[in-house]
Amino acid sequence: MSLVVVGSVAYDGVETPHGKVDRMLGGSCTYIALAASFFAPVKIVAVVGEDFAPEDYELLASREIGLEGLERVPGKTFFWAGKYSEDMNDRTTLRTDLNVFADFNPKLPESYRSLPYLLLGNIQPALQRSVRAQMNGVRFVGGDTMNLWIRETHDELIETIREWDFLLINDSEARMLSGEHNLRRAAGKIMSTGPHTLVIKRGEYGAILFQGGYYFMVPGYLLEDVFDPTGAGDCFAGGFMGYLAERGIDPGHGDIEHQELRRAAIYGSVMGSFCCEKFGVDRFRNLTRAEIDARYREFKSLTDF
Amino acid sequence: MSLVVVGSVAYDGVETPHGKVDRMLGGSCTYIALAASFFAPVKIVAVVGEDFAPEDYELLASREIGLEGLERVPGKTFFWAGKYSEDMNDRTTLRTDLNVFADFNPKLPESYRSLPYLLLGNIQPALQRSVRAQMNGVRFVGGDTMNLWIRETHDELIETIREWDFLLINDSEARMLSGEHNLRRAAGKIMSTGPHTLVIKRGEYGAILFQGGYYFMVPGYLLEDVFDPTGAGDCFAGGFMGYLAERGIDPGHGDIEHQELRRAAIYGSVMGSFCCEKFGVDRFRNLTRAEIDARYREFKSLTDF
Repeated sequence: MSLVVVGSVAYDGVETPHGKVDRMLGGSCTYIALAASFFAPVKIVAVVGEDFAPEDYELLASREIGLEGLERVPGKTFFWAGKYSEDMNDRTTLRTDLNVFADFNPKLPESYRSLPYLLLGNIQPALQRSVRAQMNGVRFVGGDTMNLWIRETHDELIETIREWDFLLINDSEARMLSGEHNLRRAAGKIMSTGPHTLVIKRGEYGAILFQGGYYFMVPGYLLEDVFDPTGAGDCFAGGFMGYLAERGIDPGHGDIEHQELRRAAIYGSVMGSFCCEKFGVDRFRNLTRAEIDARYREFKSLTDF
Repeated sequence: MSLVVVGSVAYDGVETPHGKVDRMLGGSCTYIALAASFFAPVKIVAVVGEDFAPEDYELLASREIGLEGLERVPGKTFFWAGKYSEDMNDRTTLRTDLNVFADFNPKLPESYRSLPYLLLGNIQPALQRSVRAQMNGVRFVGGDTMNLWIRETHDELIETIREWDFLLINDSEARMLSGEHNLRRAAGKIMSTGPHTLVIKRGEYGAILFQGGYYFMVPGYLLEDVFDPTGAGDCFAGGFMGYLAERGIDPGHGDIEHQELRRAAIYGSVMGSFCCEKFGVDRFRNLTRAEIDARYREFKSLTDF
C-alpha cells in the first residue's frame, strides 16, 4: 500500500571526523522517502528551488518515488550545514538558509488524498495539521517533531499530534514534551494526548516502542564505522512506516498487528544503521532489499536468548 | 557450583532526588555477593572494621553467603559518600575514607582455593592478581575495573586481565582502555589482550556481550522509578556470574554455552534493575527468586520479535 511523505528536501553541508562534503542531497523528506522506498510505493510532498539538480530528481525517480507533489519554485533550495564532534554524539549547526522552504505550504495532489499511510516529517505543526486535513480516510498517520516546535508552538503541536496514530521523537524531546525525565512516565503522558503508538529514539542505543501496556526494546546496530549520522532518525521513520505500508498493517489493534509493529521498528533501526555507513544518502544508491533482510536477521541473532 | 567474590565491603552515604541516607551497607563485594546469592553458593573475601554492625553480618548470613574470608580488623570500615544529579546520570563523590581498606591484602581461606568460579570486584589490579594466584584450577575467572586503575596502573592492569576469562567494564572505561571510541573496535582490541568474553555496560541502556565473533545486545529495564543506581553495575556482575555458577557453565566453548552466556547477561540486567528500586541493598532484603524469574521472562517479551 502507498505511503505519502511530507517534509524537507534540502542540500546539506556536513563535516564528520571521516570527511567533509560541502553540498549534497538531504532533508527529512528525502531520507524518509528513500528508506521507505525499499518497502512500499512512496509519494512525496515538498518544495525545491531552481537549483535542484537533475541527478537528484533522478535518484528519487530511480527508487520509483512519486514526485507529483514535489513543487519547484523560483529561488534556492533549503540549505543546512553542520559539523559533528569527534565522537559524533554532538553536532553544531553552522548555517540554516530556509530559502524556498520559508514559504512552503504543502498542497496534496488529488491522487495522494485517499492513500492509506501518511508520514509527516519534522516541519511546523500547523503545516503538518493542514496536510492531515487534506487526506480522506487515511488509515495510519504519524510523524516526527523537534525541540523548536515543542518550545515555540507547544499548544499547536498538542492539537496536531492529537489526530495522529503514532509519534516518533527522540528521548530529549520526549522529556521536554512531557515534563517527565523518566521515559516510561514520559511515554504514558504523551500517549494520553492522542497517539496510541509511540517510538522514542535513543540515537546509537536504538529506540523504545510503546503501545497499549507494552513496550519493546529496539537495539541500535553496532557499526564499526559511523561515517555520517545525518538522517538516521528519518531513515528509522522511513523503514518503520515503509514496512507497515508494505504489509498493509493498521497497528492500532490486535496481537498480530502488535507483532508486525515490532518488526517494523526493527526495520526502522536497520535502515538507520545503513544510513550511517556513508555520507548523506549515498548508501541508498546501491543498497538492496536482500542486504536489508540480511541485517534484519542479524538483529534477530543480536537479541535472541 | 560455588563462586568466590572479592571486593569492598563498605558503608555508603547516598543522596538522590528521591532522598538521602547518611550511612548504609554498600561496597562492590556486598552488591555482587547479594545479587549472586539468589543463584549459587557465594563466599566472600573482604575486610571490615570494628564498626561493622551485627545486622549487616546477619543480612549477608541470611543469604547464606560464606563469611570465612571476611576479615575484621582494628579501625573503621571503608566509607564512601556521593550525590546524584537531578536526572541521576551523574554523581559526585563527596567523601572517600579508605580506612581499613587501605591495607587490604586479601588472603583466601584454604576452603575457597579450589572453588570453580571467581569474580574480582573493582580493587587494585595487583590485589586482583594476587587473589587469582591463590586459586587452584579455577574454571572461570573475571572481574571489573575502573578509570583510576586504567590511568594509574595501566600495565599492571593489562597483566592482570591477561589471565581472566572475562572482563566486565562500562563503555567509557572500554574506550579509555582500548583508545578506541567505537565500541565494536574497542571490544576487539580488549579481547586481543586476553579475555575471551567481554561485557560492556552502558548504564540505563543495558550492556553488550562480546564473545568470539558474536555480540549480543542486553537491554536495560525501563523502571518507572529509579531510587538509587548505586551498585547496579555490581549487581549485574553478580547476576551474570551467579547464573553461570548455578548452571555450572564454562562459557568459553560451544554453542550451548554461548546461549547460556546470553541468559547470564540477561540475569545480570535483571539484578541491576532490582538494585535501583530501593536505596542501597534494601531491595535484596525481601526479593525472591520467583520475582527474578518473572522479570527475566519480561525481558523475553521486551525483546521478542
